[in-house]
Amino acid sequence: MRVVDLIIKKRDGYELSDEEIRFWIKGYTEGSIPDYQSSAMSMAILFKGMTKREISTLTDAMMHSGDIVDLSKIKGIKVDKHSTGGVGDKTSLVLGPMVAACGAKLAKMSGRGLGHTGGTLDKLESIPGFQISRTEEQLIKEVNDIGCAIIGQTKSLVPADKKLYALRDVTGTVESIPLISASIMSKKLASGTDAILLDVTLGEGAFMKNIDQARELARTMVDIGKHLNRNTIAVLSDMSEPLGMAVGNALEVKEAIESLHGRGPKDLMKLCYTSGSIMLVQAHIAKDREEGRKMLEEVIKNGKAFEKFVEMVKYQGGDVSYILHPEKFEISRHVIEIRADRSGYVQSLNALTIGESSMKLGGGRETLDDVIDMSAGILLNKKVASRVEKGELLATVYTNKSEEEYLPVVETIKRTFVIEDRAFEELDVIREIID
Amino acid sequence: MRVVDLIIKKRDGYELSDEEIRFWIKGYTEGSIPDYQSSAMSMAILFKGMTKREISTLTDAMMHSGDIVDLSKIKGIKVDKHSTGGVGDKTSLVLGPMVAACGAKLAKMSGRGLGHTGGTLDKLESIPGFQISRTEEQLIKEVNDIGCAIIGQTKSLVPADKKLYALRDVTGTVESIPLISASIMSKKLASGTDAILLDVTLGEGAFMKNIDQARELARTMVDIGKHLNRNTIAVLSDMSEPLGMAVGNALEVKEAIESLHGRGPKDLMKLCYTSGSIMLVQAHIAKDREEGRKMLEEVIKNGKAFEKFVEMVKYQGGDVSYILHPEKFEISRHVIEIRADRSGYVQSLNALTIGESSMKLGGGRETLDDVIDMSAGILLNKKVASRVEKGELLATVYTNKSEEEYLPVVETIKRTFVIEDRAFEELDVIREIID
Repeated sequence: MRVVDLIIKKRDGYELSDEEIRFWIKGYTEGSIPDYQSSAMSMAILFKGMTKREISTLTDAMMHSGDIVDLSKIKGIKVDKHSTGGVGDKTSLVLGPMVAACGAKLAKMSGRGLGHTGGTLDKLESIPGFQISRTEEQLIKEVNDIGCAIIGQTKSLVPADKKLYALRDVTGTVESIPLISASIMSKKLASGTDAILLDVTLGEGAFMKNIDQARELARTMVDIGKHLNRNTIAVLSDMSEPLGMAVGNALEVKEAIESLHGRGPKDLMKLCYTSGSIMLVQAHIAKDREEGRKMLEEVIKNGKAFEKFVEMVKYQGGDVSYILHPEKFEISRHVIEIRADRSGYVQSLNALTIGESSMKLGGGRETLDDVIDMSAGILLNKKVASRVEKGELLATVYTNKSEEEYLPVVETIKRTFVIEDRAFEELDVIREIID
Repeated sequence: MRVVDLIIKKRDGYELSDEEIRFWIKGYTEGSIPDYQSSAMSMAILFKGMTKREISTLTDAMMHSGDIVDLSKIKGIKVDKHSTGGVGDKTSLVLGPMVAACGAKLAKMSGRGLGHTGGTLDKLESIPGFQISRTEEQLIKEVNDIGCAIIGQTKSLVPADKKLYALRDVTGTVESIPLISASIMSKKLASGTDAILLDVTLGEGAFMKNIDQARELARTMVDIGKHLNRNTIAVLSDMSEPLGMAVGNALEVKEAIESLHGRGPKDLMKLCYTSGSIMLVQAHIAKDREEGRKMLEEVIKNGKAFEKFVEMVKYQGGDVSYILHPEKFEISRHVIEIRADRSGYVQSLNALTIGESSMKLGGGRETLDDVIDMSAGILLNKKVASRVEKGELLATVYTNKSEEEYLPVVETIKRTFVIEDRAFEELDVIREIID
């Protein structure tokens, strides 16, 4: 078998056989197939697509390119949650403890932020002492002991994806739904979970800009999961404006703590209740979403979700005093208030602009080597549909950058609040559920 | 400028600027842009095409990636001829001396054969002593002295094409008309000619399988030539059956000699007269094609074309006694006659099958490292539309391979002669002229 013939086959619109897909992924992982053939293949897939069978086989081949985590030593049904990324998305920090407090088992491997999107691992690391590097044994013990753990992906997991993703990133072949789906699902499946809740974000701040793309991505991933016998459900969530009010690592952890105390922003809480109730049904803990939601509301009210978060932080070496007294988190040197020039209603608030601004303030990475300033970010005071009076606070900017550096960013943030005379409807964070 | 942004731009169907195309070709030639980005770019170009302006700029950028041959020291208008490749195509050996005998200046850089197609350099090397490695100075002196030279491409010519062509060959990105056109034209333009006659072959034995593709390729190359101020005209010629009767290096040289003596096969001679008369007009030697044709007929009749070939062989170190006494060419060990099983008319004779058979008999290369057996090949006795009686000779096979190796090939050749009861029209070798 020659990979050039497989590239030509895909290029000409034909379906690759299971054997051919496995030959490519195995050869590429081992290094016998060079980058320049895999990039040509990825571009051909981007243009010609893949059938459901091809995508499932690709996912399976990638999943088996490295170690598979064996979570069978964890009692009960293991559930996992994955978001396709957004701005201000601290859902895992809130949702994880919530479902664990209800009895679900969550062994989550998470990622770092890049560009305008944040990463759960970075957020957790803003808690002094918090360890994200754990072995498989430590992960299993933690989930068995307290019900949840959020750690970094182990190095030996899905090497094919590491290699292929890095290649796609520099060859203009990221935007292929089959390749995105196989990348996400191979990692989720290799991490050994039984059930998967996917949060597919859409809008300006997300990877998928419109609902048709988001629906197709969600449908493709749900089909892969089902094809490979994992209970998989997707929530399509809005990411045209940031999620919640906080953007930036420590700022988001503080918002997560507030949320676990029952004082979370409406959109974030709705997403947590919706996703969490599905996960509790997937975990066979609730008989339906209605019941699941009631259980989740209960653990917020009685403080058990917050206690679970404290337990997890403690278990992973974090300084719990920061969780109990969030005022301990360091505040950045510069705190700049942005106020409205006019009265009216916020018509739009571009999540991409806010995400990029947070990165420029020091809160994110442009390249994987950049060091994050945990205290930097933006606290929103108004969101889409909010009534604003002239002179009222729109947002507060936190940064340790020089005035020369932060002033243009502050200006950009101010401009992204589009204020009009007429009232607008609030955005609904939940757009659709695909199962 | 980042090449990934250019790949995305092309992938999404936008036009690349001149600066962007030059950035890619310069970076790729120098090695700052890796293979994996150039293969993704090539695939994006294959799917999305290029505008006339983009193709001209690409050609120009490739042409200037290395040395440009300066033929200004050759007096008069320099004409060149390029064929997109075929089976039994010894046109250059006949046409070159013909136009030179009429006074045209032909400084031709030629290529080697690969796969089912033969190469002019290999054919010439079947003449003992013939040298195809010449410096630019030697080339200029030869053309000034005798009017024509056929040599190998110098190493420093169009390095971008050498690199890109090798990459396209293994990444499924050969079949792109913009990339094929830029590859051919950059080499022709870098070799310093004033006027170009393109022979775009079409049919089973050619790269372009149908007339629409061939027309598009021809039109694209003619436009590039005109855009870069070279008089460029294309002949579309039929390659559904082999050209002439001989396929294989020494066999084809012998057929070329016969043709220069005025005993050439009808299709080969028609192609030489048509192409040659256009070249004589391009060279301002004939006022129109009619006159050009008469001049060419004259140099065949009076022996001047043959004399010119003898002069060239002598000039490039070849043993002229082989040209004067072609019976001196070594005959292969095995000579196998293929005879008809039935009477009728030849309906088809697949050029690709004949070309591949000749390669398997030892007459061609599967990879560039293979050594050619100059004596191997096939002499056809019948072509499409020929009347055949049962038991009559269809073809003679020449090979030094073992019986075990050649018998299946002989069987294949026999089967490719499709003989039917009803008469068929002869194929016209000239399909169209595009100028």
